[in-house]
Amino acid sequence: MAALDLLSLNTATVRDAWTLEQCIEGCQRHGVTAIAPWRDRLQEMGVERAARAIRGAGLDVSGLCRGGMFPAQEAQGRRAAVDDNLRAIDEAASIGAACLVMVCGGLPAGSRDLPQARDMVRDGLASILDHARAAGVRIALEPLHPMTCADRSVLSTLGQALDLCDELGPGLGVAIDVYHVWWDPQVSAQIARAGDRIFAFHTCDWRVPTRDLVFDRAMPGDGVIDIAALRHQVQAAGYAGRLEMEILSTDWWARDPNEVLAICKARHEAFC
Amino acid sequence: MAALDLLSLNTATVRDAWTLEQCIEGCQRHGVTAIAPWRDRLQEMGVERAARAIRGAGLDVSGLCRGGMFPAQEAQGRRAAVDDNLRAIDEAASIGAACLVMVCGGLPAGSRDLPQARDMVRDGLASILDHARAAGVRIALEPLHPMTCADRSVLSTLGQALDLCDELGPGLGVAIDVYHVWWDPQVSAQIARAGDRIFAFHTCDWRVPTRDLVFDRAMPGDGVIDIAALRHQVQAAGYAGRLEMEILSTDWWARDPNEVLAICKARHEAFC
Repeated sequence: MAALDLLSLNTATVRDAWTLEQCIEGCQRHGVTAIAPWRDRLQEMGVERAARAIRGAGLDVSGLCRGGMFPAQEAQGRRAAVDDNLRAIDEAASIGAACLVMVCGGLPAGSRDLPQARDMVRDGLASILDHARAAGVRIALEPLHPMTCADRSVLSTLGQALDLCDELGPGLGVAIDVYHVWWDPQVSAQIARAGDRIFAFHTCDWRVPTRDLVFDRAMPGDGVIDIAALRHQVQAAGYAGRLEMEILSTDWWARDPNEVLAICKARHEAFC
Repeated sequence: MAALDLLSLNTATVRDAWTLEQCIEGCQRHGVTAIAPWRDRLQEMGVERAARAIRGAGLDVSGLCRGGMFPAQEAQGRRAAVDDNLRAIDEAASIGAACLVMVCGGLPAGSRDLPQARDMVRDGLASILDHARAAGVRIALEPLHPMTCADRSVLSTLGQALDLCDELGPGLGVAIDVYHVWWDPQVSAQIARAGDRIFAFHTCDWRVPTRDLVFDRAMPGDGVIDIAALRHQVQAAGYAGRLEMEILSTDWWARDPNEVLAICKARHEAFC
């Protein structure tokens, strides 16, 4: 398979410039054969209309971003999160996504109780798994970089994610984003442990210096992550899915999206 | 022992406002009975003069910050780092520091080879341990938050630090800074594992949102870290040393240092 056939465009990479419809057209124009939409843009376009356009364009869907955000101080908030995740599962099924990516959520406002927040994530996931299994939607837990622990993801490492997979059973796997896991002394061992539970693989790079904790990711090749090594490790573990490029960056969002996509393709081919 | 008797002032907390001499006087004035100097301020004052002043003020030294920074592309750079660490050991001995804190260093410039950088840290430590043992200086490995992995510390977790301690043997332990380890799903297990190898315990807090990866630490109580829980865990593991407050923060550096010290004392007593 040619390298380009493995690339998927995560629409967050051109978040500010393109609607989902424009992303679908952009993928066709650039010969990119898979896409990973974010839910806000999916809902903006309309799920059924988007599903038809994606099918019509012959695109695979490497994942839907994102469910999760389970922790909340009040039971009502936690129920609302579960309900929203059930809708996300239906959306993922509608567009034929290879998985629904989970960004699990940070500490509830005002809380310092990290073990409790982690329990809330586990309980939330347990509440939605039956629906996901019935819908044939795989749930991909995405451990986020520990610097996001307070406000985005108390799921911090691949090992922790796989412990949850072990506990909660089939239908649950992981989304491995090089940005979030590259630093982890256990990353190689945990990728091998993950095996066929790797549902998604995301690429971008770590900029030095990093000027913002969320929106300063680099284009692959511009940072210090050994992406090729991690890509080979997931491949050795059995992952044969797409390599999804997801670059949350105010710098790149300010660029012409056609230029961004052309650079994404070239950099993808360099490490693929 | 009264709570205040456990407090140590890491001089980085008032880095921009006070020389080491002023820090020593400030501790006396505020009834703080221990200090942890940084090497730049120590050298500025003169090691022997500082040692006399610290003894004269009756202060304990909870640690010297910092040795480390081992990785470098060229052998010459690695040798220079080892030489500098040997000097740091002598300085720590001169001021009677409870330990020399190690910030181990990031990736060499231009490198993406994280395993190699971690090997350089291990080799550098192995090169200085005999001198440290002979000088009676304990080496405290400080795992730094994974967000510093590229440019400050490829030593990222307490588990990784303890693996090094296991490998390299006596005289090596850990400095546990709540800021760097609070997010770690393994932190409680690793604190228990550390046992009598906990040589230092540092406090500050995690601000939400965090606006800078290095200089935006919060005053204890202003962030989301459950400092009291971690403090009790290190106590249960056998640590009876100082609780050293180290707040790297451009916000706090801009405040009146006497006011900062008064607030440090109050916050320390709140979680101690």
